[in-house]
Amino acid sequence: MDTDEIRATAHRMADAARAAILPHFRHAALGADNKHGDGGFDPVTEADRAAERAMRAVLAERRPGDGILGEEYGTTKGESGLTWVIDPVDGTRAFLSGAPTWGVLIALSDASGPVYGLIDQPYIGERFEGGLGHAAMTGPLGARPLATRGDRPLSETILFTTFPELDTPVEAAAFAGLARQVRLTRYGLDCYAYALVAAGQIDLVVEAGLAPYDIHAPIAVIEAAGGIVTDWQGAPAHAGGRVIAAAGRAQHAAALELLSCVP
Amino acid sequence: MDTDEIRATAHRMADAARAAILPHFRHAALGADNKHGDGGFDPVTEADRAAERAMRAVLAERRPGDGILGEEYGTTKGESGLTWVIDPVDGTRAFLSGAPTWGVLIALSDASGPVYGLIDQPYIGERFEGGLGHAAMTGPLGARPLATRGDRPLSETILFTTFPELDTPVEAAAFAGLARQVRLTRYGLDCYAYALVAAGQIDLVVEAGLAPYDIHAPIAVIEAAGGIVTDWQGAPAHAGGRVIAAAGRAQHAAALELLSCVP
Repeated sequence: MDTDEIRATAHRMADAARAAILPHFRHAALGADNKHGDGGFDPVTEADRAAERAMRAVLAERRPGDGILGEEYGTTKGESGLTWVIDPVDGTRAFLSGAPTWGVLIALSDASGPVYGLIDQPYIGERFEGGLGHAAMTGPLGARPLATRGDRPLSETILFTTFPELDTPVEAAAFAGLARQVRLTRYGLDCYAYALVAAGQIDLVVEAGLAPYDIHAPIAVIEAAGGIVTDWQGAPAHAGGRVIAAAGRAQHAAALELLSCVP
Repeated sequence: MDTDEIRATAHRMADAARAAILPHFRHAALGADNKHGDGGFDPVTEADRAAERAMRAVLAERRPGDGILGEEYGTTKGESGLTWVIDPVDGTRAFLSGAPTWGVLIALSDASGPVYGLIDQPYIGERFEGGLGHAAMTGPLGARPLATRGDRPLSETILFTTFPELDTPVEAAAFAGLARQVRLTRYGLDCYAYALVAAGQIDLVVEAGLAPYDIHAPIAVIEAAGGIVTDWQGAPAHAGGRVIAAAGRAQHAAALELLSCVP
């Protein structure tokens, strides 16, 4: 694999997504369609669609042989054995609320899962990158290497999830049991929480009901930074669903012990 | 009142706080004392104390006649009838987690409550200011006026609180009742949620167990932007406790109807 070319492509994609999204962020007339049309709240903004189109245009120019799996425009088959897995605005509810905790997710994956990932927060100007020998971030305080904080006991652990209901009541109950054993539980960050695991700030993110494009980039970034991402059984998480992202083996094992029994 | 001098002082205080805090944010060796010593989690960082000292130094030089109420160093009596009410790091749990949703809160208050407020987020580089004829923000996208989004029905409302437990189980139950009637409920933003009300992004913030220094600055900023902040009975909120911050009268009245019966 041409690592430099892949990384340069990913950064070009992220730049294009930033330019497409920021004019819509905190815009007064922000529209929000309802994808499901069933009363559920799953907004898709103009920003979401414009950013995916912009990223697909970069790929069409630079890497036409790769496949694409995007949240908004579905699957484009490739012939290279590599697929770009992209979520133009992960955290659309945060986006609609004006909170800067949404992000652009870009991953490159082969048949075994993600090999490279990038999490970008355009408003703050932060970018987290991991895989293919790299694990680093840039942001308001400059460039820094990414490294998880390593092992620590559950009693010293900071745990995040986006909302306490998770995807189902049984998952929510299991999460609550885990939350009772940690030092601090916080809510609401969407993909930004995964970036904080990679940046050595927090210990665990536990979520459920994820799509593949929600988790491919976080897997690559966190694993490159020394962390562990699996499903609630300890198996690979790149198919989505229930996810544990951990800063170290100790936190991961402790979370698995409490969550793996959930039917 | 010398409006220009007051605003210039507040901005100098916020600048001083930024410089004191940012070296500690996301620092690997971040310390966290436990103020209560009872196993509760109420971290006070070096950043918190250093920022309050830095802001007090600005006041000692520029406005020695004003009183000060600070989270870390308590009350300093003044003789001007004006008191600076400051929380150097509101959202210490967010700070400890590396999340950029904490803020520096600076208010100037007289006997009737806050007349001016400033909410600063140093990492993002955002500053929200309201009162004394001003209502504006600066941030990564430049300077913008602040204005709440105005009236809308509860079914179209975006509601925030920092954590779903609030301060007591009865408060949490009342909040859950409100959450069932809104379009979208989100958690976790600390003082940043109040800034989003003023910026026209969200409709309601409902919290409980607040201290005066948690809410003076948000009151001034939101009221200057056209919003309403009261306690759960509709009375002034500057003493802290239970707070409703609303983008418009409709959201405020609807929240009051559900929350005012809470004993």
